[in-house]
Amino acid sequence: MLTNVEHIGIAVRNMAASNDLFSKLFNVVPYKFETVESEGVTTSFYRVNAGRESQTKIELLEATRSDSPIAKFLEKKGEGIHHLAFEVDDIVAEMERLKNEGFTLLSEAPKRGADNKLVCFLHPKGTNGVLIELCQEIKE
Amino acid sequence: MLTNVEHIGIAVRNMAASNDLFSKLFNVVPYKFETVESEGVTTSFYRVNAGRESQTKIELLEATRSDSPIAKFLEKKGEGIHHLAFEVDDIVAEMERLKNEGFTLLSEAPKRGADNKLVCFLHPKGTNGVLIELCQEIKE
Repeated sequence: MLTNVEHIGIAVRNMAASNDLFSKLFNVVPYKFETVESEGVTTSFYRVNAGRESQTKIELLEATRSDSPIAKFLEKKGEGIHHLAFEVDDIVAEMERLKNEGFTLLSEAPKRGADNKLVCFLHPKGTNGVLIELCQEIKE
Repeated sequence: MLTNVEHIGIAVRNMAASNDLFSKLFNVVPYKFETVESEGVTTSFYRVNAGRESQTKIELLEATRSDSPIAKFLEKKGEGIHHLAFEVDDIVAEMERLKNEGFTLLSEAPKRGADNKLVCFLHPKGTNGVLIELCQEIKE
């Protein structure tokens, strides 16, 4: 099952400038920075309420190369919300359930994403134009 | 201060079809429907985790007339994520803080929104293309 809106991903052109902007907006600085080489992306993470662990995070996304998915998104749509990520308790079971409901998965198996997560995306053509990510924390 | 991502608003063309779709995706039905005549919008609200009160909600938005903000958004951008709403503990103080930080507010005073909230939007040109809503629960 989906247990929470884990985070919201926002595509930005210039991470330094956007970190300044969102730090002012949220009145808090990022608590984490992470680069995912396989996806050609560098990220910063915000919790708007520093005191509360269990809350939806904001992830800024900047492309590290011109052929990455974020670079392509920026070229096509410009800066803005890129995806919505839902925490799931069993990503493989949830992928199977959604496939059976007629949704199109963008990978056959979960991939390793940022923030120690297994992730899978759904095709936005089947979800009212919203790019949906399923994510499950990796327990080592 | 901003205390939480209160909800994410998604613009849809056909509420009935989208409620079917998102009910399948989330495996849960909307817990509330509400029309806000002043904004020309009808809404449905989801919590993806029925057992958890304090979580980010999803709000579907359908226009009730052709000159409403949602109708204009759909015409310009098509279906997809429309706004990101942050819960605040004092909306007037937060509007003042953000104005002083250089953000552009879309109204001088808070307005009455859906779900028993006072709301104010920030101009997306100043926030990396993301339409940001501040919202505060009305305590009667």
